[in-house]
Amino acid sequence: MDATFDELRARLAEHNDLQAAAALLRWDQATYMPEGGAAARGRQLATLDRLAHDKLTDPALARLLDRVTPAAEREDEASFAARLVRVARRDVERASRVPGAFVAAFAAHRAELYERWTKARPANDFAAIAPLLARTVELSRQYAGCFAPYDHVADPLIDLMDPGVRAAGLRALFAELRAQLVPLVEAITAAPPADVACLRQDFPEADQLAFATAIATKFGYDGARGRQDLTHHPFMTKFSLGDVRITTRVYRDDLSAALFATLHEAGHAMYEQNIDPAFEATPLAEGTSAGLHESQSRLWENQVGRSLAFWRGHYGALQAAFPAQLGDVPLDTFYRAINRVQRSLIRTAADEVTYSLHVILRFDFEVDLLEGKLAVADLPEAWRARMQADLGVRPATDADGCMQDVHWYDGFVGGAFQSYALGNLMSAQFFDAALRAHPDLPDQIEAGEFGPLRRWLGANVHVHGRARSADEIVLAATGRPLSTAPYLDYLRAKYGALYALR
Amino acid sequence: MDATFDELRARLAEHNDLQAAAALLRWDQATYMPEGGAAARGRQLATLDRLAHDKLTDPALARLLDRVTPAAEREDEASFAARLVRVARRDVERASRVPGAFVAAFAAHRAELYERWTKARPANDFAAIAPLLARTVELSRQYAGCFAPYDHVADPLIDLMDPGVRAAGLRALFAELRAQLVPLVEAITAAPPADVACLRQDFPEADQLAFATAIATKFGYDGARGRQDLTHHPFMTKFSLGDVRITTRVYRDDLSAALFATLHEAGHAMYEQNIDPAFEATPLAEGTSAGLHESQSRLWENQVGRSLAFWRGHYGALQAAFPAQLGDVPLDTFYRAINRVQRSLIRTAADEVTYSLHVILRFDFEVDLLEGKLAVADLPEAWRARMQADLGVRPATDADGCMQDVHWYDGFVGGAFQSYALGNLMSAQFFDAALRAHPDLPDQIEAGEFGPLRRWLGANVHVHGRARSADEIVLAATGRPLSTAPYLDYLRAKYGALYALR
Repeated sequence: MDATFDELRARLAEHNDLQAAAALLRWDQATYMPEGGAAARGRQLATLDRLAHDKLTDPALARLLDRVTPAAEREDEASFAARLVRVARRDVERASRVPGAFVAAFAAHRAELYERWTKARPANDFAAIAPLLARTVELSRQYAGCFAPYDHVADPLIDLMDPGVRAAGLRALFAELRAQLVPLVEAITAAPPADVACLRQDFPEADQLAFATAIATKFGYDGARGRQDLTHHPFMTKFSLGDVRITTRVYRDDLSAALFATLHEAGHAMYEQNIDPAFEATPLAEGTSAGLHESQSRLWENQVGRSLAFWRGHYGALQAAFPAQLGDVPLDTFYRAINRVQRSLIRTAADEVTYSLHVILRFDFEVDLLEGKLAVADLPEAWRARMQADLGVRPATDADGCMQDVHWYDGFVGGAFQSYALGNLMSAQFFDAALRAHPDLPDQIEAGEFGPLRRWLGANVHVHGRARSADEIVLAATGRPLSTAPYLDYLRAKYGALYALR
Repeated sequence: MDATFDELRARLAEHNDLQAAAALLRWDQATYMPEGGAAARGRQLATLDRLAHDKLTDPALARLLDRVTPAAEREDEASFAARLVRVARRDVERASRVPGAFVAAFAAHRAELYERWTKARPANDFAAIAPLLARTVELSRQYAGCFAPYDHVADPLIDLMDPGVRAAGLRALFAELRAQLVPLVEAITAAPPADVACLRQDFPEADQLAFATAIATKFGYDGARGRQDLTHHPFMTKFSLGDVRITTRVYRDDLSAALFATLHEAGHAMYEQNIDPAFEATPLAEGTSAGLHESQSRLWENQVGRSLAFWRGHYGALQAAFPAQLGDVPLDTFYRAINRVQRSLIRTAADEVTYSLHVILRFDFEVDLLEGKLAVADLPEAWRARMQADLGVRPATDADGCMQDVHWYDGFVGGAFQSYALGNLMSAQFFDAALRAHPDLPDQIEAGEFGPLRRWLGANVHVHGRARSADEIVLAATGRPLSTAPYLDYLRAKYGALYALR
């Protein structure tokens, strides 16, 4: 039995190593690769992805899993062996459901659409890619079909990112959230807007990076087991539990971009760095869902990084780093600037309050497209109408409308967006629970003592990796299932004070 | 037939892609990887190496080669298909000769010895690693045994680096070279030594890198298909013909280190960048031998980069980059400094004249160790005696003697060193031939016109990749087989003038 289990782990490690190699190739592509490397890199990644898929669907792996399952099931359900076998079976079964021909066809389609989108978006030419997007919807339905029967056609796609989450539950959750957020945004934007001029001065790039990195390190991002590099679209990536990297971008004329991107990605990275080291090189050594991952990045970026408590304790250091630019700017002005709420067109630039509305809109359109209720040709106008209804703004172009996000043009329609809103909800619910465990958390944050919060998250969230589902983690860590209440309470308290709402 | 050939190419590309991924993991390990990534990176590399070996020894690949061979043999012997099939067969047969169990055992032994060497060398404790080195000698003999029959036990090991080269030929060539070099070194070192003080000032690192990179770019290293990063031990690596990277190191107090390392690695890189693009992702898309590779790096580093013609045209730019340090240093002083010859202990720091003697010594010891004429326990004293005889210096420690190079402690004994001396010989023979084709080459180099030399090398050497052997390339490009004459003539002319020898 031990020998069989060792062989299982060796095969899973082989799959893990191919995935890690592919991740490094992607990191390099986004950071250091010269333009001349692009064509071959695409082929190399396709090869690694295919070989990883081959390893996961190798019948010998399935046989090993069959052999160890009875013994694993006799163990404690929470044991390492039981968890590992359960998660590995899930991965193998999921990979085996989808025919290799479909995987290859979708990869080719996706590459073509992505290439076209990079040209159509700046040209504001949605018509040029609409037929290909319609094909993506069809292929997304086919993918879902591999997992029939299901309650809703979006479920298998959502499950890819947020295992166990269903469309029906999300619809109810998001409808409730939207019903509360729309009037909140209306109330806030009726008040005088915050002045962000203090963030829009000239801030030398190296100084911005140094400050942001110092804060990420204070939060607990371990630079001996990671590093930060520059890229166009910030991301976190992991090659092993000892090598979890973040990337950022810096704008000389915007102090907030590099700072909050760094804190956000550091939140993702701390999650991975704090997974149980015993899980290394197994499928358990990853964040358990995209939504839970997003909760960790949002928590450090927003609940901590945009809080008044944090800046009470750290604004002096920022002023010292940029005395000419911020020396005369009061804390309150800066705090209002980094928390400005506005009706805007672009999701990635949205504030804490409006962000989830951008996400819910996309989720609803994914459901409608998959159900066939909305035709791709009608998407641009539907987008404009919904933006007007929810956010009070109407994009003048599709480039700033339904073509703004890469997701649908480089992957499935379905499951692509819900994680962002789930992450917002979870971040508030976790922070609220941490606050109950450590009532003096705001004082600690002000004092720069992030250890208690980080250890609470480590013990209650991070350490579990994929050994527990997001639902299990939320319930055990916060004492209740996921709800909109902590997030709405957080927004109302913070922005009620900021904008003197009744 | 076309479909079979396409399938063959697809399988070879898969193997190529695994090797490229492993190369990127090694590049990252030597440039950016945080210390926390080390353990997993070792396992990931072992996985990729094993999977690449599996792909190369897959019986399906051998069957494909069998099927296409008759048609390929009917084609022109110099055709792409004929060359590809010949080189691929060679790779497959070589990989298949060595049992997987041996590969695994040697990898484990090598990792252990390397780890011990990193500690034994600074402690000057040869006795601590002598038994493991003796085991390496035994394993090297076993490896050679997989390729029996052979003329000499070193032949299969030499063949790994320099295909087709045999111990017997090298012995004759190196004996002749040594007989000429020893008295030349004696004559030069009897003259007053060059003063290198001008190189040992404070040179800001960024300025050094900028100058070195500018020269490498002028030589023809294409930065859009490559890049330069910092590391401890400079190297060149390739992920595709469009992504050929170099690395260097910079010392503030030594102007020559980064400069000549950059020109050296750029020489390697230009070779790879100029291989026929039609060879991409096949086994033909590589340098044909380690010796030929070294000839290209040495040619740009020494025949060009340390020549009087080059510095007549470029010393002004160097002075402009470092006016405080070099403004008052005459060209002649600088030229003598970068060409100082001295009796020294360390191969990697040796000058053009003594370098080959360091190499021949190592080659001779490899042969003696493999033949059993020299016991590992007797190596330190044999090293000291031979250094005294050839170079007139005697290392005080084994750290500066037989433990100085990593090669024997991280690979086979046999075949590890001859490439460096072969490269020196070839570099002079190629440069001599280029000079016959372009008699005004020194004037072009002085004028900063490197295109004619680069194109001559491109057309006569680089473009062929592995489609031609080093011997074929030398003969076709220079009109004669490899000999010591051009190199000795070059050294005598250059250093005769520098040291006013009779």
